[in-house]
Amino acid sequence: MVSLLKKILIGRPLKSNELGEQKLIKTKALAILSSDALSSVAYGPEQILIVLVTIGAAAFWYSIPIAIGVLILLTALILSYKQIIFAYPHGGGAYVVSKSNLGINAGLIAGGSLLVDYILTVAVSVSAGTDAITSAFPALHSYKVLIAIVFVLFITILNLRGVTESASILAYPVYLFVLAIFILIGVGVFRIATGGVSPDLHTPVGTPVAGVSLFILLRAFASGSSALTGVEAISNAIPNFKDPAPNNAAKTLMAMGGLLAILFSGIIYLAYYYGISPSEKVTVVSQIAESVFGRNFMYFFIQGTTALILILAANTGYSAFPLLAVNLAKDKFIPRMFTVRGDRLGYSNGIIFLATFSIILIIAFEGRTEHLIPLYAVGVFLPFTLSQSGMMVKWIREKPEGWVIKLVINTTGAAISFIVTIMFFLTKFAHIWPILVFLPFIIYLFHRIKKHYDSVGEQLRISPAESILPIEGNVIIVPVAGITKVVENSLNYAKSLSPDQIIAVYVSFEREDEKKFEEKWNKWQPDVRLVTLQSYYRSIITPLTKFIDIVEHKASEANYQVTVIIPQFIPKKGWHHILHNQSSLLIRSYLLFRRDIIITTVPFHLKK
Amino acid sequence: MVSLLKKILIGRPLKSNELGEQKLIKTKALAILSSDALSSVAYGPEQILIVLVTIGAAAFWYSIPIAIGVLILLTALILSYKQIIFAYPHGGGAYVVSKSNLGINAGLIAGGSLLVDYILTVAVSVSAGTDAITSAFPALHSYKVLIAIVFVLFITILNLRGVTESASILAYPVYLFVLAIFILIGVGVFRIATGGVSPDLHTPVGTPVAGVSLFILLRAFASGSSALTGVEAISNAIPNFKDPAPNNAAKTLMAMGGLLAILFSGIIYLAYYYGISPSEKVTVVSQIAESVFGRNFMYFFIQGTTALILILAANTGYSAFPLLAVNLAKDKFIPRMFTVRGDRLGYSNGIIFLATFSIILIIAFEGRTEHLIPLYAVGVFLPFTLSQSGMMVKWIREKPEGWVIKLVINTTGAAISFIVTIMFFLTKFAHIWPILVFLPFIIYLFHRIKKHYDSVGEQLRISPAESILPIEGNVIIVPVAGITKVVENSLNYAKSLSPDQIIAVYVSFEREDEKKFEEKWNKWQPDVRLVTLQSYYRSIITPLTKFIDIVEHKASEANYQVTVIIPQFIPKKGWHHILHNQSSLLIRSYLLFRRDIIITTVPFHLKK
Repeated sequence: MVSLLKKILIGRPLKSNELGEQKLIKTKALAILSSDALSSVAYGPEQILIVLVTIGAAAFWYSIPIAIGVLILLTALILSYKQIIFAYPHGGGAYVVSKSNLGINAGLIAGGSLLVDYILTVAVSVSAGTDAITSAFPALHSYKVLIAIVFVLFITILNLRGVTESASILAYPVYLFVLAIFILIGVGVFRIATGGVSPDLHTPVGTPVAGVSLFILLRAFASGSSALTGVEAISNAIPNFKDPAPNNAAKTLMAMGGLLAILFSGIIYLAYYYGISPSEKVTVVSQIAESVFGRNFMYFFIQGTTALILILAANTGYSAFPLLAVNLAKDKFIPRMFTVRGDRLGYSNGIIFLATFSIILIIAFEGRTEHLIPLYAVGVFLPFTLSQSGMMVKWIREKPEGWVIKLVINTTGAAISFIVTIMFFLTKFAHIWPILVFLPFIIYLFHRIKKHYDSVGEQLRISPAESILPIEGNVIIVPVAGITKVVENSLNYAKSLSPDQIIAVYVSFEREDEKKFEEKWNKWQPDVRLVTLQSYYRSIITPLTKFIDIVEHKASEANYQVTVIIPQFIPKKGWHHILHNQSSLLIRSYLLFRRDIIITTVPFHLKK
Repeated sequence: MVSLLKKILIGRPLKSNELGEQKLIKTKALAILSSDALSSVAYGPEQILIVLVTIGAAAFWYSIPIAIGVLILLTALILSYKQIIFAYPHGGGAYVVSKSNLGINAGLIAGGSLLVDYILTVAVSVSAGTDAITSAFPALHSYKVLIAIVFVLFITILNLRGVTESASILAYPVYLFVLAIFILIGVGVFRIATGGVSPDLHTPVGTPVAGVSLFILLRAFASGSSALTGVEAISNAIPNFKDPAPNNAAKTLMAMGGLLAILFSGIIYLAYYYGISPSEKVTVVSQIAESVFGRNFMYFFIQGTTALILILAANTGYSAFPLLAVNLAKDKFIPRMFTVRGDRLGYSNGIIFLATFSIILIIAFEGRTEHLIPLYAVGVFLPFTLSQSGMMVKWIREKPEGWVIKLVINTTGAAISFIVTIMFFLTKFAHIWPILVFLPFIIYLFHRIKKHYDSVGEQLRISPAESILPIEGNVIIVPVAGITKVVENSLNYAKSLSPDQIIAVYVSFEREDEKKFEEKWNKWQPDVRLVTLQSYYRSIITPLTKFIDIVEHKASEANYQVTVIIPQFIPKKGWHHILHNQSSLLIRSYLLFRRDIIITTVPFHLKK
């Protein structure tokens, strides 16, 4: 039943050698890996205007120079990540770069904050998309959390089906969104060029404005930079590309950068020229669309594709998180299970982990995840800064051909990213402080896990120096609860191992019972020694363990091994289990975890 | 940690031979077994007036003849249960009586509805008591569910500590309540006798009233009879009494009947004479107390002890449920675990089951369990009717000395109980219909469980006819994941069992890996045969199971037994478990439940 359902939802299992077919071509990769970055043009320009409106509408022209700053940062980041892709072609992005050049803790800071960030990406973007839908259909408002969870589950199932399948389905909405915004920009600019828009709607660039300070401009710049979250995703996901993976990844990255630059500057320019002011109720993109088209089909097309891409931005998290987790797990900082490929060759444990935690976040914040946005932005710029600094160190150390230009690119990127990070801390500390709590905690956890794995490896390693003594013989203890076929079965097996060293143990709760049982036993199995133990406290485990300890002590002197054979009958149907005292399971786990004793279970399968 | 906490809450474990000290003397037994019945005088009289007020205040005098009817029913029930106590001195009450005389299904109807009823008792009475408290302190109102759960947990812990301990603590509030109502009745009657109360407050008995019908009077009678719920508890709990148990139980029953009769008729009389009219906001007992004393200390004393006894009424469920469950479990209708005595010699599984389900009810109904009251009343009168009819059959069959009088008593009881049951169905069907759904379901479940136990007993019985073939030898399969000390340990054990028949099995995910491993193995353990299996779908279990099936097929032809030895390392700390792929546990459960194969676990305990 469960396995059939799994097959319907996830698809038939794939053989390991079908991995090649699960690789992405550039156009599909662009769609699923850039949905996060591209979706941010839906809210990035608005963030700039929201800061500027605190001074007054006259200050809106500053959005043009600020946008130029964002574009410079974007260029630096894209060029820099292109360098990272070729320098670290196995993926891992900021984590691997920082680890290799700045040391292990820098790597863990970058990796840890990206891991958390991808969980936030999923929660925030799905919530934002759901908001867009429930704004359109207010009747759905009270089912917000449920709808968001259904979207998360849908994206999770798509990703569990495999990366190519999700790419094929998700590519359409991404390209539709790009097309929609292109049409919007094209028609908007055409109307400006043909004089269809009054130039009085905006103050000219350069108009002096009272109350403008560097601090406010930097704050607007930092807010606008949130449009750049997601550009690192490709560097984490190189292994998902078709060969030659680094080349394809680099080309995809450049294409994404180009698209992002055009969309971002187009929206900023139209918002400036049309004199759009940010409003609580209507988004900036929606206002531009209304000014350009009025409320016709194109307006709804733009609104619809925007809502869709906000939800699909979550998919970038699904592509990047499992691959980053594999890198951390290979270095033993997180549990090994993240390196295991599932039925469809995706890293399903990472996918399920991501889904679980983002659903928890959605439920905990009841779908109102806006407060998480600053946290999410700082969680991206911290690794940006670290990876750029790492590359700087790399160039200075290695000095390859043309290293000076490379160094300049990375230094620019590192400096701007650092400024943005600091601006976030200065202006939004109330939302950001949790990172100062959970990041150290996560890094502590990483180290604890690594230490445990190292210690286990050490303890399990065979050393030729210590040779192990062969076992001289076996003493077999069979706890018996009555005279039944289950016991008969177990004794039969015990006799086949070492016929002379079998002790049957019976725990009785009452004196009379003890006598009676001994008599019956001696008639039934006269050749098997029976020991009866009296339990005053109605516990089977306590007297049994005491007895085993005594036997073990004697046996170990002669280098004998003690084996406890547990007769266990297995009911035919699952629900029957609750009808039986699971003493045998209890005894087994207790002895296995507390004592150095070998436990053998002899099953007796009931037929009906 | 857990065991220390358990010791603090529950107390040190008791030896089985300390059972005698856990028996109850009459005064304590009266307190804990009659709290349910006595508490019902707090709402029984009110139920009668609530029905009569639908005709008009002039009809209140009918409460006097109706109360006489209730007293007749009470007398019949008390005398009848006294006969049951002597006839069935091992307890079990209605279940045993109905089973013995009317057949197994009648017994199961009585037993099943009482089991459900005790759960309802706990939920309803604790909720009612909590209501009384939150009415006094409205600030606590939003914590109603939490407070109710805390009370349930408190009573549960008391009962897990043992029946004598809970009796010692709970006796005080019960006797205080009885004292409080006695003072109320005494002072109230004294004021009437000394002419301190105007006789105009009530219409005289016999005044003709328009609109009175037999149906309404019967309905009022049925509602008033809800004051009799709980009188059957003593007959279930005979084994809890000190010897001679039946005599002590009978005397306790008579004392309870006497007290109940006095309190009930006193309240009814005062309510009638003082012309009390039922109100949504103030209970009848509270109105009487205010009329008699005004709002002074005595008023609050009466209110306080009433709230307390409503909560403690739950304890009757805790005394009767586990003993009834033992009777059903001995007959194999419910899981055997209900017959096991816990650390403090109480039937702790019954106690915990009762607590869990009543907490679920309290949460499900958010503490508003009033709707459950009719269900709860009909769940008592059904077993009343069945047990009385059962006794009728018994007297007619056995005809002991003086059987005619006994038959008359039981016939009266059966007839009135039957009428009350029918009245509940006629007048409160909207609240009662669930019993028609869950009672048949429970009885079906009882039969299924019994059938399963019988079938297991059949299958496990040793039959001298079929003798079991001795095992000729063992083939040992050791799944290995690498070359480690855990594997070394397991191989060492395997060699001690049958050195020539060991097959190590390695499941590889990649071809190259397979070759490498074989080479390493042959250097390390040249004398142990290694089989490597290729897994195309990255599953260990599937290829391993297929291989085991082949080996098993061959082995069984020669009457050889297949043993799978599973190397398992046991981490030192609990949380370490999540860091390791629990393949060994998975393999073990899979093989044990699906295949007829012996599983041996060789533990390797990590030191750090």
